[in-house]
Amino acid sequence: MADNTILIKNALILNPDVNYEGKKDLLIKNDLICEISDNISQENVDKIIDASDKILLPGFINTHTHLSMTLFRGLADDLSLDEWLNDNIWPMEANLNGDYCYIGALLGAVELIKSGTTTFSDMYFYMEDVAKAVEESGIRALLSYGMIDFGDEERRKSEIEENMTLFKNCHDTADGRIKVFLGPHSPYTASEELLREVRKLADENGIKIHIHVSETQKEIDDVSAEKGLRPFEYLDSIGFLGPDVICAHCVWLSDDEIEIIKKNDVKISHNPCSNMKLASGIAPVSKLLENDICVSIGTDGASSNNNLDLIEELKTASLLQKVSTLDPKVLTSDEALAMGTINGAKALGLEDEIGSIKVGKKADLILIDTNNANMVPDSSNLSSNVIYSANGSNVDTTICNGKILMENKKLTTLDEQEIYEKARKAIDELKKAL
Amino acid sequence: MADNTILIKNALILNPDVNYEGKKDLLIKNDLICEISDNISQENVDKIIDASDKILLPGFINTHTHLSMTLFRGLADDLSLDEWLNDNIWPMEANLNGDYCYIGALLGAVELIKSGTTTFSDMYFYMEDVAKAVEESGIRALLSYGMIDFGDEERRKSEIEENMTLFKNCHDTADGRIKVFLGPHSPYTASEELLREVRKLADENGIKIHIHVSETQKEIDDVSAEKGLRPFEYLDSIGFLGPDVICAHCVWLSDDEIEIIKKNDVKISHNPCSNMKLASGIAPVSKLLENDICVSIGTDGASSNNNLDLIEELKTASLLQKVSTLDPKVLTSDEALAMGTINGAKALGLEDEIGSIKVGKKADLILIDTNNANMVPDSSNLSSNVIYSANGSNVDTTICNGKILMENKKLTTLDEQEIYEKARKAIDELKKAL
Repeated sequence: MADNTILIKNALILNPDVNYEGKKDLLIKNDLICEISDNISQENVDKIIDASDKILLPGFINTHTHLSMTLFRGLADDLSLDEWLNDNIWPMEANLNGDYCYIGALLGAVELIKSGTTTFSDMYFYMEDVAKAVEESGIRALLSYGMIDFGDEERRKSEIEENMTLFKNCHDTADGRIKVFLGPHSPYTASEELLREVRKLADENGIKIHIHVSETQKEIDDVSAEKGLRPFEYLDSIGFLGPDVICAHCVWLSDDEIEIIKKNDVKISHNPCSNMKLASGIAPVSKLLENDICVSIGTDGASSNNNLDLIEELKTASLLQKVSTLDPKVLTSDEALAMGTINGAKALGLEDEIGSIKVGKKADLILIDTNNANMVPDSSNLSSNVIYSANGSNVDTTICNGKILMENKKLTTLDEQEIYEKARKAIDELKKAL
Repeated sequence: MADNTILIKNALILNPDVNYEGKKDLLIKNDLICEISDNISQENVDKIIDASDKILLPGFINTHTHLSMTLFRGLADDLSLDEWLNDNIWPMEANLNGDYCYIGALLGAVELIKSGTTTFSDMYFYMEDVAKAVEESGIRALLSYGMIDFGDEERRKSEIEENMTLFKNCHDTADGRIKVFLGPHSPYTASEELLREVRKLADENGIKIHIHVSETQKEIDDVSAEKGLRPFEYLDSIGFLGPDVICAHCVWLSDDEIEIIKKNDVKISHNPCSNMKLASGIAPVSKLLENDICVSIGTDGASSNNNLDLIEELKTASLLQKVSTLDPKVLTSDEALAMGTINGAKALGLEDEIGSIKVGKKADLILIDTNNANMVPDSSNLSSNVIYSANGSNVDTTICNGKILMENKKLTTLDEQEIYEKARKAIDELKKAL
């Protein structure tokens, strides 16, 4: 098969690591970035994109979400985590099936693509249906099944079986866009036996681990009461932690736990909007960054956010650190940009493939149109302009694995309107089934 | 002259006070809402807008900004208030003139209209040029000149003269869309004599007052050191406060000061993004609301935000209160909606004219298109869908004073691209002049 080539002309590049001076051309061959220079010949190129007036960035990486929960957007708000979960989310989830999760994931994929996210890391149920949505949408995903055993041995076996079946069926599928992780839900819903088994499977098979840790003060209190240790102390004591573990939330951390995270090179997914909306607390992100800990960003599910806009999430992360430390210099726009791109890639073990714009990396790229009122003037500081002024609606082109998923705000792989109709129908049915 | 009529068909109405069940038609005659009912005849109507799939809201009200500073978007970020102001903003402002302020205000007006704000309250310089931009854009504005005397009598006289000239020339112009307020800058830049003179002029002429109060801990320390009183105690002691005073920021408040605010029926403009970005602090908004104090919302200038998106501001306000009080039930989406609409109207003394959708009120209205990924499903809770899921880009129609300023995202009164070019040129010139 002949190579497929896309040439992006005249782009200002905003990149978290290598800095490119002035406007550049970028050539994509198949799934890879194969050249970045001042003037690339247009001859024999299949497709040319004019990026004058646009900023070219690596696609954003959302390291913690539950994509199918996009169906539950706006279902329950202004409630405590307990009421939200016990009285609203869990009763709804009881009636979920693969079809609903597929539709929810498609709806989420539309939102991700439209707002410039090209990779997401997910933990939920019916994950083979989510994989189907990923396959069709063209996006990149790390999928894990949320394993919960509450100490029940039977359940533990079947949960592990479910996650390992997902691994066997879906890992490295969709042209390599899908990888599968192990997803023990949290230290308070997964037993010590489950966590130890997950560590063993991870080591034996080279599978990475995705888990929720230290989201609420209640979790700290409960784990401390049961184990006599705080969550990260406990996880460290059973040999669970390592550089292959990505922990979502990490709101309540003692200094000793920050040391444990650093020592084990554990990766963090910070979820500020969800932590604020559910009043979970403020993660000590600037302290984590000072300790050279890899902090990435996640939206959590749309049901506790209530959107999947990673630019909004990064702005919120930055502003929340500034005000909570009373130091306006922490979590700068450059650091926020890194959290949304290269740190996400590192957190997922994909830093050689995605997270920045470099020859040889995957062509996961977005274009942001600066010719809009909220981004003018646009001459001073590109990262500030993107992080503080923009939102996801300023993204006009999204490319993943060398394939254009959206151009000039038109999706190429998914039918938005059809998905909206199906999503509305799905949530109506789920409400009726209560 | 014949009446000008616009009929909005089939709208779901989201309103902070009166609740309308089901979809409604709304008829605008000239500048007023003249009928809201189930089925209004289309006969003899000049213009029909189909609002199926759309939410109809009162236009948002931004009660504290510096619109011309939109020129300084992204000029200086991640700095302390002192460095931001002294080393970056003030040197730029030294070279401002009326033409630059006019362009900056037009740029800001484009952004306001596009993101659904129909009224803004401003304090800055060259305010007659800002008034010109307001006149041309069709938006509604409360304009004040920022008076600073630092105790200098000559300067005091000329500053008051400037604000009173603005009042004489511009108050109640542009079909009544422009009102003029008195704008003593703050208790630390305006002398006691200036504040007393402002109170006198306000009483004599029925002019309202717009002032910054208690933005930073440093301000509290400085005022306390000089006056032996905290800012609101001091303002109360000189008889400055009253129901006609709108105070921006109000971050650092003692319980006694909250009592003073309540007793005097002082109005508050909460500016969360600016307070977070400059690390000023977290205003005790939920406590103010508990005390039945009127809290409205402002973006502050785009140079410390860095945009004018009031939906983003309201979401941030809500989330920040939840996490700072660790109570997810405070500042609900309904309360946030009220802050962005009817509370703004009350704060500006315009609650009989704007801030909600009611027959006899001014036709200041916006339509939000819910048929977009970030707002689907859209069936559960309208205020949640708007406040937590949407952003300004979901607004597709903006009407002010009965005139359509934007329809299907196309502006009718302003030429966006021409304004962007002029704004870029202006900031380039200002940078060169440094």
